[in-house]
Amino acid sequence: MDVDSTVKAIKSMEIHGAGRIARAGASALSDFAENYTGKDLEKFRADLAEAKENILGSRPTAVSLWNGVHATLKGSDACGTLDDTKALIIKNAKQFNESSVNAVKIIGEIGAKRIQDGDVILTHCNSSAAISVIETAFKQGKKFKVYATETRPWRQGIVTVNELAKKGIDVTLIVDSAVRSVMKYVTKVFVGADTVTSHGTLVNKIGTSQVALAANEARVQLYVCSETYKFSPMTLFDDLVTIEER
Amino acid sequence: MDVDSTVKAIKSMEIHGAGRIARAGASALSDFAENYTGKDLEKFRADLAEAKENILGSRPTAVSLWNGVHATLKGSDACGTLDDTKALIIKNAKQFNESSVNAVKIIGEIGAKRIQDGDVILTHCNSSAAISVIETAFKQGKKFKVYATETRPWRQGIVTVNELAKKGIDVTLIVDSAVRSVMKYVTKVFVGADTVTSHGTLVNKIGTSQVALAANEARVQLYVCSETYKFSPMTLFDDLVTIEER
Amino acid sequence: MDVDSTVKAIKSMEIHGAGRIARAGASALSDFAENYTGKDLEKFRADLAEAKENILGSRPTAVSLWNGVHATLKGSDACGTLDDTKALIIKNAKQFNESSVNAVKIIGEIGAKRIQDGDVILTHCNSSAAISVIETAFKQGKKFKVYATETRPWRQGIVTVNELAKKGIDVTLIVDSAVRSVMKYVTKVFVGADTVTSHGTLVNKIGTSQVALAANEARVQLYVCSETYKFSPMTLFDDLVTIEER
Amino acid sequence: MDVDSTVKAIKSMEIHGAGRIARAGASALSDFAENYTGKDLEKFRADLAEAKENILGSRPTAVSLWNGVHATLKGSDACGTLDDTKALIIKNAKQFNESSVNAVKIIGEIGAKRIQDGDVILTHCNSSAAISVIETAFKQGKKFKVYATETRPWRQGIVTVNELAKKGIDVTLIVDSAVRSVMKYVTKVFVGADTVTSHGTLVNKIGTSQVALAANEARVQLYVCSETYKFSPMTLFDDLVTIEER
Amino acid sequence: MDVDSTVKAIKSMEIHGAGRIARAGASALSDFAENYTGKDLEKFRADLAEAKENILGSRPTAVSLWNGVHATLKGSDACGTLDDTKALIIKNAKQFNESSVNAVKIIGEIGAKRIQDGDVILTHCNSSAAISVIETAFKQGKKFKVYATETRPWRQGIVTVNELAKKGIDVTLIVDSAVRSVMKYVTKVFVGADTVTSHGTLVNKIGTSQVALAANEARVQLYVCSETYKFSPMTLFDDLVTIEER
Amino acid sequence: MDVDSTVKAIKSMEIHGAGRIARAGASALSDFAENYTGKDLEKFRADLAEAKENILGSRPTAVSLWNGVHATLKGSDACGTLDDTKALIIKNAKQFNESSVNAVKIIGEIGAKRIQDGDVILTHCNSSAAISVIETAFKQGKKFKVYATETRPWRQGIVTVNELAKKGIDVTLIVDSAVRSVMKYVTKVFVGADTVTSHGTLVNKIGTSQVALAANEARVQLYVCSETYKFSPMTLFDDLVTIEER
Repeated sequence: MDVDSTVKAIKSMEIHGAGRIARAGASALSDFAENYTGKDLEKFRADLAEAKENILGSRPTAVSLWNGVHATLKGSDACGTLDDTKALIIKNAKQFNESSVNAVKIIGEIGAKRIQDGDVILTHCNSSAAISVIETAFKQGKKFKVYATETRPWRQGIVTVNELAKKGIDVTLIVDSAVRSVMKYVTKVFVGADTVTSHGTLVNKIGTSQVALAANEARVQLYVCSETYKFSPMTLFDDLVTIEER
Repeated sequence: MDVDSTVKAIKSMEIHGAGRIARAGASALSDFAENYTGKDLEKFRADLAEAKENILGSRPTAVSLWNGVHATLKGSDACGTLDDTKALIIKNAKQFNESSVNAVKIIGEIGAKRIQDGDVILTHCNSSAAISVIETAFKQGKKFKVYATETRPWRQGIVTVNELAKKGIDVTLIVDSAVRSVMKYVTKVFVGADTVTSHGTLVNKIGTSQVALAANEARVQLYVCSETYKFSPMTLFDDLVTIEER
Repeated sequence: MDVDSTVKAIKSMEIHGAGRIARAGASALSDFAENYTGKDLEKFRADLAEAKENILGSRPTAVSLWNGVHATLKGSDACGTLDDTKALIIKNAKQFNESSVNAVKIIGEIGAKRIQDGDVILTHCNSSAAISVIETAFKQGKKFKVYATETRPWRQGIVTVNELAKKGIDVTLIVDSAVRSVMKYVTKVFVGADTVTSHGTLVNKIGTSQVALAANEARVQLYVCSETYKFSPMTLFDDLVTIEER
Repeated sequence: MDVDSTVKAIKSMEIHGAGRIARAGASALSDFAENYTGKDLEKFRADLAEAKENILGSRPTAVSLWNGVHATLKGSDACGTLDDTKALIIKNAKQFNESSVNAVKIIGEIGAKRIQDGDVILTHCNSSAAISVIETAFKQGKKFKVYATETRPWRQGIVTVNELAKKGIDVTLIVDSAVRSVMKYVTKVFVGADTVTSHGTLVNKIGTSQVALAANEARVQLYVCSETYKFSPMTLFDDLVTIEER
Repeated sequence: MDVDSTVKAIKSMEIHGAGRIARAGASALSDFAENYTGKDLEKFRADLAEAKENILGSRPTAVSLWNGVHATLKGSDACGTLDDTKALIIKNAKQFNESSVNAVKIIGEIGAKRIQDGDVILTHCNSSAAISVIETAFKQGKKFKVYATETRPWRQGIVTVNELAKKGIDVTLIVDSAVRSVMKYVTKVFVGADTVTSHGTLVNKIGTSQVALAANEARVQLYVCSETYKFSPMTLFDDLVTIEER
Repeated sequence: MDVDSTVKAIKSMEIHGAGRIARAGASALSDFAENYTGKDLEKFRADLAEAKENILGSRPTAVSLWNGVHATLKGSDACGTLDDTKALIIKNAKQFNESSVNAVKIIGEIGAKRIQDGDVILTHCNSSAAISVIETAFKQGKKFKVYATETRPWRQGIVTVNELAKKGIDVTLIVDSAVRSVMKYVTKVFVGADTVTSHGTLVNKIGTSQVALAANEARVQLYVCSETYKFSPMTLFDDLVTIEER
């Protein structure tokens, strides 16, 4: 898809979800390079910079987009020729997209190692990485029970419950204020991430910190399931994370 | 109201609310004594014991009923004559009912001393005692802001918000999972009580302990607004509180 | 038994155990009063004071003895006649001894209310009050499991394991350093008391505080099973408890 | 020693101790390379892989063996010729063994910097690294006192006490349940390690976590004395450590 | 001294110090009763009420004055005759004044039981009750060392150091910010009280809560040395303590 | 300045302050290299080593000097010719000095990102890095309030207050013992560093740990503003930091 269409699709929420947005940004730059007909490297660089700014501007609060775009452009400044530059961008985008698609699967495999027979798992909101961990463990034949919070106000927990129940997993919906009450039976918590800062701070759906507080009090281990492209590089220089309010 | 009608009305939830149930029990025993036509003290005692058991059986989990009934009968065993016994029961019931009606008002006056200009108050569920504190402080001209939790699943927080807003109090409804997020702005928490045990343990609506956990972490003072007839005397001998599930 | 024989028997450890020593002291004073042949109240009081000092001196570190002796003499100074004084002492001693014998049974009944099906109980050392709680719950048909610490250096845990196993209770001996490891499965801890100070401090067999530390970290409730005559009245004036080293 | 003999000796516990097992594995591979008479690199690699598996299988729970074997084989896949491969393996094994032998001495020197006159040291079980720290400080003329736990059930603390006392160090044996009682006098704790995971978790003899809990409560610094070949590389991918039960 | 002179002397700070103010208030009422020449009980009561209000108004923030005045008037409403009323007031005042004078001495005796050879004591500001504890222990021949904080801005610590040094006690002045640094050597902290609320909250010189925080972190026992007439009875109904700013 | 003059100036405190001392050491080595007239590399190295020791010896407790000197000599051993060696030393020194001068400015820019309108900032002692953060935020137009501790005994807080007030910043001096009292209003704490160890331990002016304790209790973020040349490399091998007492 060309840059303009990608920007429009992201702005209109037609393309949504941290992973999909990031891959769309990477692909748009790859297509831009592939279809570029000019011959001048300097001109290409200027046009590329403009394309990059447009793409980043389509969702300034999405760290995944920032990371996908920069992963795609990595090293392109150092290329000596136009052809080399284009080739690198195309290769980078392909690599980023593949690893992005694989990430949820790999997270599922790594995280499932931590689930054991008899576990009682709590999850909050609707994280594909956390769900991947739970489903992978279930496919491995492990026996466990899941609590999913309703996650008011948008009630994403109902989506989570439906996804897990469809696979045959024993899952129970609880109201958000029941977290501390069920925590005494919970053995592990798995949540996703909106972003993770350079200081290791997790930014995620409202209610996550309350789940973490109750888990910490009850000495229950809480696992954050996050693709690496959710890390916020800007926080290295002490910039604060901007949180989107819808 | 006679004993049978009272029992029916409590069972059918026609009479509901901790205070109203307790007063209905006390009144039923008072009416029983007043209208008793027999002349034999022993026979009266036996009939009274039966009436007492019927009333207590109408809602065995209601501590307030237990307390109202026992406050009414207090000292009646020691009376030497039928007339003295009847007089004492009538007097006890009157006294219990009056102090029960006054309790919410007095709690409001005591609690309001703790509210100061600039406070940010959090309340959970719909407690008439906690609301009395907030409204009393408001009538005293104090300037403050209130957060009320939605209190899923029955959303009693909406009733709370409506009651307070109607009086002109600045009140905001929050989802239950936002408690820890707003706690950094909160200066005081006021909640009601279902019952309080002899060890000082508070039993209250689901979510209360989560509010308390967040308040404790943030070093915000939490006040429990409870009439004394909500104390559980049976817990003195280490009996556990039975929690009603509806 | 007369005072001198009682003192000898306590000193030689022939009479041992907090309860038995206390009752022996009470009985010795009762016998002293019963068999006193003098007629002069003042003389009786002086002889009694001497008997009291002798008995207390037989084991100065035993709080139970101090409490048994003072319970026996309570109010005797206020009696106007020799006969009244003797009668009171005899009555007090009888009452103390009966309540002392009943205490372990009553503790068992109160404590057993806290044990539920599925509990995993930890006990330390060999406390007859803690064992009474466990055995009472077992007789009530409750299903649970017990861990008993070895309690080095004297290994009183082996006595505990034998007592419980003989009744058919599922009990496992663990080394003292395994307490924190098993604590994640434990739901309740029951221990006895050597003495309890006026500030509520528990003094008990070495290792008890370590069990309490691990229980507190794991948020497991710990119950101290103690007869009231183990309370140290001298600590009201900030005196420290003297700990016997054998 | 050849591979088969080494495997047998490890399995029969003839060769035991984390360091000795690791060095035996490294030496067996070195000898295998040195004595290999074949000429084909591919064949050598296949035979080497088999030897490696046999050695690792002799004690699958020993992280030190895994690390010794992998340190020996490091880089061997990248060698272009059979001679280069053999030479690298021989060199790697020599280097690993030397550094393994030196590690305890170096740990002693580093750790002793932390011991000062007047310190009261606690150690648990019988760790040669922790003992090396204590003895090095003693040789430097520092004045301190040591508590060693009995370490039930196998009582390795008695070995520790004998080793230290023989050198003239002031050492006292305590029962495991006295740890929290002596901790108020202790200024530093030194313990060894069975293994350390990639998350920094220490796995060590039962009772270590209880010592750590008491040290943490009393704000006493606890030092883990561990050779680097005790780190568990498999835990990088969230695998759990398998604990051997004897 | 008559009521007017007492009021003037308190207002002008001629009479100062919690104890002296309280005793002056009690004495003024006693003198008022003793010198009253009227014959009518009702008139006396009205005059007495006025005297009481004047005295209380001389220092409204002094809890000790409130307590001294109310202790003096205790029970006077129930007296049937003018003579009885006067006699009671005179007796009450005498009793209050004596016990007030004795309190510091008794606190010294009780508190000194807690000091042992080798202790390192920290005190803050200049509390006569805390100093009484330290000096009593010193007179008993106990060997210990004292740290006294400078207590900026008014530097009352210098007075404390002088008082203690004059008696021959080993005392060191430290700056207020060194509290946490010396706390690792401190074994006990003794401080005084401005007032103590019904919830057990201590109100005292600025810096006391910081000392308490450091003591709590280091698990050092902190003793509050307070006469009972420093308790704030008004706080029973949740009134807040008014803090005087000079 | 030549080496001898530099050493003298540092010893006499003519050159003082962590940054200035470090830059003086770097410059002295650079001048030494620039002015060296010999032709023999080995001889140069020996003379350089002597110069280095002299410079380090002028203030052995100053980590910044150690770091400035080693940054200047970094890589010089690997140079093949005298000219290369001299050139590298001159270049290194220039680079160190520039980055040292810039560090406080950069810290100011990074730290100021964390200050927001409405903040209440606490600082302790007189740290140029912490002041740089506060002043940078002020220049950016942010509205906030500052508390500065007096920092007894040398009262560096008065210097801090003067510096900030001169710029028009709203700053209040507090006594050191008021830290915990104002902490409930404080939103961020900024302090400097004397040195930071390899374990992340901060060593700074007395009182800093007390500020940190109060901030931690109140969950207020505390930022340490430190140039990288204040890190103590020797602590990597567990050496303890030597603290200078003046």
